[in-house]
Amino acid sequence: MQSDAMESPARDRLAVHTITTKPWGLAEAADRYAASGVSGMSVWVEAIEGMTNADVRSTLQNAGLQVPALVRGGFFCDRSDEERERRIDHNRRLIETAAEISAEMLVLVVGATPGEPLDRQRGWVRDGIEALITDANSHNVRLAIEPLHPMYAADKSCVNRMWDAREICESINDRMLGIAVDVYHTWWDPELESEIRLAGTQNTLFAFHICDWRVPTRDFLNDRGLMGDGCIDIRGIRRMVESAGFDGWNEVEIFSDEHWARDQQQFLNDIIERYADC
Amino acid sequence: MQSDAMESPARDRLAVHTITTKPWGLAEAADRYAASGVSGMSVWVEAIEGMTNADVRSTLQNAGLQVPALVRGGFFCDRSDEERERRIDHNRRLIETAAEISAEMLVLVVGATPGEPLDRQRGWVRDGIEALITDANSHNVRLAIEPLHPMYAADKSCVNRMWDAREICESINDRMLGIAVDVYHTWWDPELESEIRLAGTQNTLFAFHICDWRVPTRDFLNDRGLMGDGCIDIRGIRRMVESAGFDGWNEVEIFSDEHWARDQQQFLNDIIERYADC
Repeated sequence: MQSDAMESPARDRLAVHTITTKPWGLAEAADRYAASGVSGMSVWVEAIEGMTNADVRSTLQNAGLQVPALVRGGFFCDRSDEERERRIDHNRRLIETAAEISAEMLVLVVGATPGEPLDRQRGWVRDGIEALITDANSHNVRLAIEPLHPMYAADKSCVNRMWDAREICESINDRMLGIAVDVYHTWWDPELESEIRLAGTQNTLFAFHICDWRVPTRDFLNDRGLMGDGCIDIRGIRRMVESAGFDGWNEVEIFSDEHWARDQQQFLNDIIERYADC
Repeated sequence: MQSDAMESPARDRLAVHTITTKPWGLAEAADRYAASGVSGMSVWVEAIEGMTNADVRSTLQNAGLQVPALVRGGFFCDRSDEERERRIDHNRRLIETAAEISAEMLVLVVGATPGEPLDRQRGWVRDGIEALITDANSHNVRLAIEPLHPMYAADKSCVNRMWDAREICESINDRMLGIAVDVYHTWWDPELESEIRLAGTQNTLFAFHICDWRVPTRDFLNDRGLMGDGCIDIRGIRRMVESAGFDGWNEVEIFSDEHWARDQQQFLNDIIERYADC
């Protein structure tokens, strides 16, 4: 469902996550996005495995693409102190990578360990991010905490609402730390609008991710909908973030076995067409 | 994960929902529960289709079973005024049924219409429940709003946290209206403990439903876990509700294709065994 009386989103603010067109390698995705008039590409770690950062950077530069984000860092949660340290070190390397490929930010999916109290785990997340803040500043790479839907609370993210993310941002209080708002994870939250407004005043609205929630959703991970194929009022949420001062990228991030099985150029064309109604 | 330093739940407070042992008809379920020492049976509407209320009542009485709840009423959400009225009328009949089979309460799954703003829908729910409150009082049947997990926000329930349910309870403010706390839907909520405490002071803690959250969960509807097979700290949440003054039934409500495919007596034996650790 869409809210009207609002213009289509700026075409030059459209970015697509590489995972969205997973069957394409980085070079092909870069060429296709550029040829289709997509200005931004958020790069998943999996998409650049085996490449040097210099090669990634030149591939993207040659295509004329900007890079909103390197996706995904985080995963701070583990019962072992040593393992948590290893993960923080891994995030340090991801911050370097983000800087070297000219990504504006590193998106943090914070992780979760089944059976461990979630508030204790959010403490691990807080500590992990705090340990990275100097690196983020020195490399000029912003860190964006992405709250994941509560259906991922057991094993993927102990941060499930903007409220939880804000608590961590307020605790660390650094201009390089903010929030990635994904409509898929947050649309149901009665406090979404007030939290977005608050994030605007706190300068923590770093990213806006779009897709749709299919009814029914057939799979926990890979059944996200193309915008317009589900129940999310994407335009209404875009109004919220823009009213709160957000003027960054509209990033399309769709995990979908159904769409990955399609011709990816046709899928990309559909994304661009549907984007106009977001 | 279990919190220790707390006793096993009272054996005579164990109830099982008929849906848990779906392959059994009502009469067989009643006999089996009673023979296994289960004191309570929450009765699903689907389990008594085609039976008179008098037959249901005598079946349960002959087995010596008490009836915590008739499950499920609600489903108040529809864009059509007429349809919403029809649903309210249907709930009136369910309240009568609950009274006639001696169920203490009617559980309300409030419903959701994809694409309609959730706050507007919660208004429909509030109005629907308000229209039923006189009936609930005159039949001495309590109404328990059951918040469902946010993964059901699109098409099953626009009430997804205890917070949302409390708002409706406070608005109507009647001693016959309260909340059914199901660990499956609420375990992830950072405000669960404070909301349970508040519900205790407001005398709205009407029901406590238990099962577990499997990791991974393989299906949106029918993959709930037997207690102990997932990540929920059931004993910790039981401590919360009991500390808040709850002394009602511990109701086992499991939807599971896997368990429904098993020998149901063996499954019931497992439920009873695992209950001791809840």
